Amino acid sequence: MERIDFQTEPSRYRHWKLSFAGPVATLSMDVDPAGGMFPGYELKLNSYDLGVDIELSDAVQRLRFEHPEIRAVVIRSAKENVFCAGANIRMLGAATHGHKVNFCKFTNETRLTIEDASENSKQFYLCAINGTAAGGGYELAVTAEHVMLVDDRRSTVSLPETPLLAVLPGTGGLTRLTDKRRVRRDRADVFCCVEEGVRGKRAVEWRLVDEVVPPSAWERTIAERAAEFAARSDRPADAAGIALTPLDRVFSDAAVTYGHVRIDIDRPARRATLTILGPSAPLPASLDAIHAAGAAFWPLAMARELDDAILHLRANEPELGVIVLRTEGSEELVLAADALLETHASDWFVRETRLFLKRVLKRLDMTSRSLIALIEPGSCFVGTLAELAFAADRAIMFDGSRGGDNRLPAAIRLSTMNFGPYPMGNGLTRLATRFLGEPESVTAAQAVIGHTLDSGAAEAHGLVTAIYDEIDYDDEVRLMLEERASFSPDALTAMEANLRFAGPETMETRIFGRLTAWQNWVFQRGNAVGDEGALKRYGSGIKPAYNFNRI
Amino acid sequence: MERIDFQTEPSRYRHWKLSFAGPVATLSMDVDPAGGMFPGYELKLNSYDLGVDIELSDAVQRLRFEHPEIRAVVIRSAKENVFCAGANIRMLGAATHGHKVNFCKFTNETRLTIEDASENSKQFYLCAINGTAAGGGYELAVTAEHVMLVDDRRSTVSLPETPLLAVLPGTGGLTRLTDKRRVRRDRADVFCCVEEGVRGKRAVEWRLVDEVVPPSAWERTIAERAAEFAARSDRPADAAGIALTPLDRVFSDAAVTYGHVRIDIDRPARRATLTILGPSAPLPASLDAIHAAGAAFWPLAMARELDDAILHLRANEPELGVIVLRTEGSEELVLAADALLETHASDWFVRETRLFLKRVLKRLDMTSRSLIALIEPGSCFVGTLAELAFAADRAIMFDGSRGGDNRLPAAIRLSTMNFGPYPMGNGLTRLATRFLGEPESVTAAQAVIGHTLDSGAAEAHGLVTAIYDEIDYDDEVRLMLEERASFSPDALTAMEANLRFAGPETMETRIFGRLTAWQNWVFQRGNAVGDEGALKRYGSGIKPAYNFNRI
Repeated sequence: MERIDFQTEPSRYRHWKLSFAGPVATLSMDVDPAGGMFPGYELKLNSYDLGVDIELSDAVQRLRFEHPEIRAVVIRSAKENVFCAGANIRMLGAATHGHKVNFCKFTNETRLTIEDASENSKQFYLCAINGTAAGGGYELAVTAEHVMLVDDRRSTVSLPETPLLAVLPGTGGLTRLTDKRRVRRDRADVFCCVEEGVRGKRAVEWRLVDEVVPPSAWERTIAERAAEFAARSDRPADAAGIALTPLDRVFSDAAVTYGHVRIDIDRPARRATLTILGPSAPLPASLDAIHAAGAAFWPLAMARELDDAILHLRANEPELGVIVLRTEGSEELVLAADALLETHASDWFVRETRLFLKRVLKRLDMTSRSLIALIEPGSCFVGTLAELAFAADRAIMFDGSRGGDNRLPAAIRLSTMNFGPYPMGNGLTRLATRFLGEPESVTAAQAVIGHTLDSGAAEAHGLVTAIYDEIDYDDEVRLMLEERASFSPDALTAMEANLRFAGPETMETRIFGRLTAWQNWVFQRGNAVGDEGALKRYGSGIKPAYNFNRI
Repeated sequence: MERIDFQTEPSRYRHWKLSFAGPVATLSMDVDPAGGMFPGYELKLNSYDLGVDIELSDAVQRLRFEHPEIRAVVIRSAKENVFCAGANIRMLGAATHGHKVNFCKFTNETRLTIEDASENSKQFYLCAINGTAAGGGYELAVTAEHVMLVDDRRSTVSLPETPLLAVLPGTGGLTRLTDKRRVRRDRADVFCCVEEGVRGKRAVEWRLVDEVVPPSAWERTIAERAAEFAARSDRPADAAGIALTPLDRVFSDAAVTYGHVRIDIDRPARRATLTILGPSAPLPASLDAIHAAGAAFWPLAMARELDDAILHLRANEPELGVIVLRTEGSEELVLAADALLETHASDWFVRETRLFLKRVLKRLDMTSRSLIALIEPGSCFVGTLAELAFAADRAIMFDGSRGGDNRLPAAIRLSTMNFGPYPMGNGLTRLATRFLGEPESVTAAQAVIGHTLDSGAAEAHGLVTAIYDEIDYDDEVRLMLEERASFSPDALTAMEANLRFAGPETMETRIFGRLTAWQNWVFQRGNAVGDEGALKRYGSGIKPAYNFNRI
């Protein structure tokens, strides 16, 4: 199969159009029916596949970094009478279970990124629905802070997945109904069973949209609302954007090499080693220099590469069940980068960089592969990069040095970045989640910020799973990795999905936990995906044949 | 298939032994290998199937009602060297997907009931593990308030599902590790991958058990701890227990008839109508009279029958996808029963009755059938019975009276019982959950406690989904029920599991949401249940063959 590439840029978009007017951008969906990622389906009626969503994700990211002046973004359709028909059904009907699950995960992450832009980047999203917003189309709409529906007696919102397709509104739809929009449950139940959807005043009364607008006032009201939201933003009016230049990547069968990230692949072992390199040059000395560095600023450059590497492994290397997380480089330079991120936290570009690092680390949390951090001499698991160890299912640390190796012994060093800016989906830091049963350990870790913690100290502080000295390390690690790779990948996926997210649940964790788990279940059921199931028979004129046993 | 019966009593137990010593009961697991519910497997090593769990559920229930003097319960094994080997693997390997899911749901409910007994009935459970507590055995153990492990170098706790069986510790195991015992996630990860388990001091250090005890001090320490917990209880020392007399039931193909509950079955429509009858006689006039009535006290009698009816429908009628909830009887008598439950709330037996009603209503919430309440003339959706309407996915109300029908128009009346004693698994009342987006509606509902709310008032207060008058009612209801029964049962199960539980998540909702949904997913995967999967090949000497794609 051809490699799925998550990199794109506006000049290559086939499905979205960006336009700008002062502090307001318009992101228009105009899906090219012939532009599907795979053969065999047409993207009619603004329906989407992964390729459409990769462009959306890119646009949302660039709006944040490249357009500091943009304070409000209006998502709308460039087509007549249809806003968006949701995920393409023939694509879903033909896709493997694994592709469906990966597709839904990525689209969910993109939807959450839109909400993160509104909440944390103060780049507020609005959605202007004229025409039908069905299924994934409505799910996209409700990521916005303000959802407007034209009151033209034709335009509707709907979640027809259950009646039409025997699947769920699984891109956050059900969860946003209950958790975000707080729709009364019986109304949500009715709404999810009405193929034709809801329109007009009832859509407002049921909290499905925020506002209905007569056609005559439509454009004017959109402009007014966008201006209102823009007025609340703290984004700078006169800053220069940071161009997200193309990533340098070299793909081979055994490796993917970026500037600061490397993937080494061991196929017989079903293992990828993901090595993150610390800064290779001195860091900018001032905020101006950070802006001048732009996309080359190490925290951003590394984050972009790591994000792409994770997505590549997810989509293109499904058999690599174990990801070993390594770091290499100067602890001092990583800590210096963290110091810059802290000192200039209120700068808009540094804020974006911090927020992006947060999202990349969450992408790692949500990656259904076993994550094993190896903390060895020459590594730099410090500050921001120490989060990789805390995101891992296990972190193994080399105790002391190898004979003949003159590098310093492996160490962990914490920075203030480990105690706030990178919350997990559950709203807690990784350390707070790790130490739910012993909150005093968070305090103890805070007390040693900046200290060099050797293996003994790291273990005593509960920061690593195990330490092994030179005599045992290689064998213990080898056995652990071999064992892990031998287990059922499904049981591991499900186990990790439960163990990684202790503590509070949020809308985000509920989307990836409860909703996604149920959707994945449904995506295996014959009633949805069988030859006589609803996804296969949709549009054929033949009704699906269901097994009516309730499970 | 033979009907699965959830009713039993101690004289019929094959797998558990109850003994009593002052305020302490001992519940000994001694599974009869030949006593499996289905042919084809032996219940070796205290492994269990649904039949074993039905007895456990019965014992826990009777301990609360029949033994007010019991303040602490010690769960232990009557076998040498094994506490409990968990769910029987050959049973799991042979069972249908539906049976596995139902089995896990019931065992999960029973585990939560044990915790409810400790927390709310002040009948504290302890667990004394000598021998191996593996998988479901350990999951049972950690329902206790205090888990003791003998330190004999052989006795261990383990969750070997992932490495051995390619499934999850899905009876709450993973969730109790993270949420209840707050085990550090990397330790939980190691623990769940170590077939041989953990023993001795490490089991305490990792928070897997509360205490390890040398063999020489074992019996003495168990007695001491039980006495310590018993001393904290507020249960009466000298009250007479309430015997849970056998239910009167008549089964036919088209109906199941109890004293206060009736199931009418319409197989072509795939629908069961569950009618709950209000009190048929005046209620007891005093607390003494309530005790004298015992199991005949209407709230308890009705709750026991309703509980059995729900379990019967779940286990034995999987094709009946819609449950219509009806009530018949005197509103005044139901409100009088509620008044008794409120007035005597501090009495131990009334407390148990209230707690049991809470659990039965939660059992209804967790029932994967579409629940439609029909509120019609002659019904008594008031107070406790109004919870049925709030538990339903939709509640439809008849507006006015039918011509020629001289009964009063349909009404809803609220009591204080709708505002506290029956929280859902999420910890909120059904009304608070319903009105998450409009909390002022809870206050408004509280203001009309006791008022007769006709259809207009009920709709205005947001208590019902829709009202229809005589002209439309029959057609609207018929169409709705037909439509519902035509949808994919899987999509409905998953949709309802998401829409019913808005608001906060608790350990309980996470067990039934995140954990159960993932387990159900795994229970469909070839790596677990295929002919070459781990459940089928367990004990065969042949390794399972896995598809190593990570999903």
